[in-house]
Amino acid sequence: MRLNGVHVEETFAELFPMKYCRMLVTAATERLATTSAREATGFGTSIIMAPGEAGIERTMSGDETLDGRPGAVIQVWHRDDESLQNALLGRIGQCVLTAPTTSLFDAGGDPGFRLGEQVAFFGDGHQRNEEMYGRDVWLVPRMDGDFVVEDSVSIEEGVAGGNFFVLGRTQGSALQGAEAAIDAIGGVEGVVTSFPGGICSSGSKPGSEQYGFMLATTNEFYAPSIRDEVDTALPDDVGAVYEIVMNGVTLEALKGATAAGIRAATTVEGVVGIDAGNYGGNIGPYEIHLREVL
Amino acid sequence: MRLNGVHVEETFAELFPMKYCRMLVTAATERLATTSAREATGFGTSIIMAPGEAGIERTMSGDETLDGRPGAVIQVWHRDDESLQNALLGRIGQCVLTAPTTSLFDAGGDPGFRLGEQVAFFGDGHQRNEEMYGRDVWLVPRMDGDFVVEDSVSIEEGVAGGNFFVLGRTQGSALQGAEAAIDAIGGVEGVVTSFPGGICSSGSKPGSEQYGFMLATTNEFYAPSIRDEVDTALPDDVGAVYEIVMNGVTLEALKGATAAGIRAATTVEGVVGIDAGNYGGNIGPYEIHLREVL
Amino acid sequence: MRLNGVHVEETFAELFPMKYCRMLVTAATERLATTSAREATGFGTSIIMAPGEAGIERTMSGDETLDGRPGAVIQVWHRDDESLQNALLGRIGQCVLTAPTTSLFDAGGDPGFRLGEQVAFFGDGHQRNEEMYGRDVWLVPRMDGDFVVEDSVSIEEGVAGGNFFVLGRTQGSALQGAEAAIDAIGGVEGVVTSFPGGICSSGSKPGSEQYGFMLATTNEFYAPSIRDEVDTALPDDVGAVYEIVMNGVTLEALKGATAAGIRAATTVEGVVGIDAGNYGGNIGPYEIHLREVL
Amino acid sequence: MRLNGVHVEETFAELFPMKYCRMLVTAATERLATTSAREATGFGTSIIMAPGEAGIERTMSGDETLDGRPGAVIQVWHRDDESLQNALLGRIGQCVLTAPTTSLFDAGGDPGFRLGEQVAFFGDGHQRNEEMYGRDVWLVPRMDGDFVVEDSVSIEEGVAGGNFFVLGRTQGSALQGAEAAIDAIGGVEGVVTSFPGGICSSGSKPGSEQYGFMLATTNEFYAPSIRDEVDTALPDDVGAVYEIVMNGVTLEALKGATAAGIRAATTVEGVVGIDAGNYGGNIGPYEIHLREVL
Repeated sequence: MRLNGVHVEETFAELFPMKYCRMLVTAATERLATTSAREATGFGTSIIMAPGEAGIERTMSGDETLDGRPGAVIQVWHRDDESLQNALLGRIGQCVLTAPTTSLFDAGGDPGFRLGEQVAFFGDGHQRNEEMYGRDVWLVPRMDGDFVVEDSVSIEEGVAGGNFFVLGRTQGSALQGAEAAIDAIGGVEGVVTSFPGGICSSGSKPGSEQYGFMLATTNEFYAPSIRDEVDTALPDDVGAVYEIVMNGVTLEALKGATAAGIRAATTVEGVVGIDAGNYGGNIGPYEIHLREVL
Repeated sequence: MRLNGVHVEETFAELFPMKYCRMLVTAATERLATTSAREATGFGTSIIMAPGEAGIERTMSGDETLDGRPGAVIQVWHRDDESLQNALLGRIGQCVLTAPTTSLFDAGGDPGFRLGEQVAFFGDGHQRNEEMYGRDVWLVPRMDGDFVVEDSVSIEEGVAGGNFFVLGRTQGSALQGAEAAIDAIGGVEGVVTSFPGGICSSGSKPGSEQYGFMLATTNEFYAPSIRDEVDTALPDDVGAVYEIVMNGVTLEALKGATAAGIRAATTVEGVVGIDAGNYGGNIGPYEIHLREVL
Repeated sequence: MRLNGVHVEETFAELFPMKYCRMLVTAATERLATTSAREATGFGTSIIMAPGEAGIERTMSGDETLDGRPGAVIQVWHRDDESLQNALLGRIGQCVLTAPTTSLFDAGGDPGFRLGEQVAFFGDGHQRNEEMYGRDVWLVPRMDGDFVVEDSVSIEEGVAGGNFFVLGRTQGSALQGAEAAIDAIGGVEGVVTSFPGGICSSGSKPGSEQYGFMLATTNEFYAPSIRDEVDTALPDDVGAVYEIVMNGVTLEALKGATAAGIRAATTVEGVVGIDAGNYGGNIGPYEIHLREVL
Repeated sequence: MRLNGVHVEETFAELFPMKYCRMLVTAATERLATTSAREATGFGTSIIMAPGEAGIERTMSGDETLDGRPGAVIQVWHRDDESLQNALLGRIGQCVLTAPTTSLFDAGGDPGFRLGEQVAFFGDGHQRNEEMYGRDVWLVPRMDGDFVVEDSVSIEEGVAGGNFFVLGRTQGSALQGAEAAIDAIGGVEGVVTSFPGGICSSGSKPGSEQYGFMLATTNEFYAPSIRDEVDTALPDDVGAVYEIVMNGVTLEALKGATAAGIRAATTVEGVVGIDAGNYGGNIGPYEIHLREVL
């Protein structure tokens, strides 16, 4: 199959369930909301060695938020409830409570984890529990006024591991294609991309051939610098590859993001192929077949 | 003492030694270097509950870097060697190795921790050890070519806890003063500010009056929303306060940053006072007296 | 009337018809589209002495654009057809044709001015006329491939002069309120704000008391530094004022933007009043009464 | 000659004298200074059809500026004194006077054009003339306080037309190389690049073969889409070209920028050649030979 003249491989991405929490950070201005959201979702690329996976889903204007202020919807993901709760306590307590003019609200559907109550202990007895905007919130005194934080947030099951590869004739073309894909995915509700700028340069395989202690190592079949030493999967005209990795609240959202991202990548001159990563269907219960969603 | 008409309190910041690692991330463009550096230093506000403290010190043009490419100097801090080494393995392995076109070099003076060797295990036996730019580096195959990472990085002792408070008639003025301070500190060699956008809204005291399990809680004497309930330290004309928190490679660097930051904050209309936080000299061995450095 | 505790003056903005052209700039990535759009709409604050008024209305993802690439919708305004056509030839020929990977399409409803044909003379006989995406376009050879530009664009009549004032206790608060307003207006279809960052610090009156050659001079009644020398309109608790100035494709769009902007500004601490500018209804045929639209 | 493996053509850029004015915009924060500076230098790519050529040279921290506030150094260029003076009146009066918290100072060596006095007429008789920071300035009342503007600015003769071409295997690579060049040139004192993001996609020749009314048309010998129709200058492996165009206060500054930019571009994978544009030495009195400056 060719899309805008670009070959799309007959393959699929393999996905698996993971726990996430979706929250809304609001602030006096969009810039302030984004500054806090970016800190709160930093160092959040992959649970292999990062404290959760995290990303900014999108910004919101005041018309859409509870308190009429601009905001950013963020997602934090982890392998189980306990790991996620720990990540949330650190990320919200250290990066949202601490940021100028911010408030924090649940943006999921089932607020069951009392994150806000715990963060509010920072108030040292001066915090107050109130109902605001129809939500149960805490007002925590800090140096610029009160931090408003919802008492509970939702921990839910979503889908992780969405991915596709952008193959380019050169590094510059593959990267431009990946950036176009990220621009497109930015418009898809419910999806985050957790790698730096949304783009992963270090596609990996699970485990290792050489080192038993490594959870993941380079996917050598897509590494151009050793293409002559391995049974490479790279076509001759491909100089570099970038991987887009996505988590989403539903499989449907990830299908939409996969399609939008691939379509965008193929509009870029010098992009010559689209591929995806899977483990033969052995690890994850979900599959997104590239050609089906396009 | 008044500076640009603004009252500077007769007080001092209290500082203490902490371990840090200073590194250079280079990439094809400054934007790509910064994207990786920001992810690698995210969720790095305070070691109270974040995996280390981290920040971008400054960007570098290709004229200044080892490989002739633009870059960003980053610092990661932690309480002891082991905690710092763990933070580094996660932050560099997950946020620099994974970012498009990046390389990583030591930017300290005593490379003793073999961070690069460990990150290079990602190469699964395909990594090569070479000398480049006079450094001992690893070339790790990834999807966009080789990741170049220096074998060892320096873990050194610096100074943490630098701080001052910007007191404003309103929230907007205090924040604008704090932003001016951060702009000025950005030009000081060797110093990072780890909070979101460099600015902390949640000034704290160690421990808690109410909750034994809390390592730090709100500094209620500077919280405007409860000024009538506590023995407030806020002058009548102060509506909000922001704290600038800094770590630096030397005490001298922090003195320079303190002076530059305060000077800048006092140029902003509506800023009415400068103060600082200390614990009576009981915790940290170093002191920066505001009036002395100005 | 009070909104979020902020006084909204019983007054109206006075508006008048003006000619505009609305276009879509697309590029390989959103960042590249925005870079071109920002240059093309620069030096475009007020027709008093700038070559037209211009702004970016919003960005578009590839799902919404003709060519599947991300883009930015821009508007250029001027007093009459001829002035506008001259401004367009310069702005598009010098700032979009010249920018990496861009294309330009009409985003109005009545393409009658052959801007694209004229810009395409740059091809020096090598330009080709084709139909693409259902549009009549020119392909103009340049160093990075072909520049695609629609043959004709629409010159239409819209409404200029939308405005309101944000009054703050301090400069910082007034500015934060104005920024919140701009964030909100960014989400309103059909509206642009042409001043730097959308915010005007130099509110003016038509003509001059002193200098016959000046088309507009300071609105001294809102100037805080001379409040004691004139019959000031500033309440005692107001330290600074910023004006939001807007043009829109319809009066309805501007009413929506006025309401959204004011609502957002009043959520900011330290904002104490909202006002607007008019000339007693003598100049413009349209009025937006602040309290009516809220 | 090869640099980092990239062929550098044996050729030269041809340059000519042009008039410029160099100014410093300061503001409460660097972000505000840059917002004004960007608007004031927008629509300023080429004097062929733009109202002057303009760019931001660099930002300055408060340590370097007259008023202790952060700032941006801007340059505006035009063909003669009168054209430049007109451009300055519009750009400063419409884009700096109108921007929040800004001040404007001369940053040249020979203040002879009374720009500030003329802009200050906006004060309608309320402007005051004072000496501040050792400069003769006007204080012009506006809504957020006084606009401080130096009475006179310097109009001097500099050098325009500095240029080199970045040839890439693909569009993405050529663009990444051009971006790396712009990053490097950003560090060179006295030089501005006026095209969108500093990069020109529409390299041109003077005049036209077909249209007598065109001052400049496409340089068809570097246009990849018509390489088979003309006597192309493009090597077989080149897919796209971008041109870096620079103005500088001295020829020496431009030589430094040319060297820094080319060196940076050649570090990018997929960049395969460097070239430059000249008219056989018939137009400009200055030449920069690429191989000599490297």
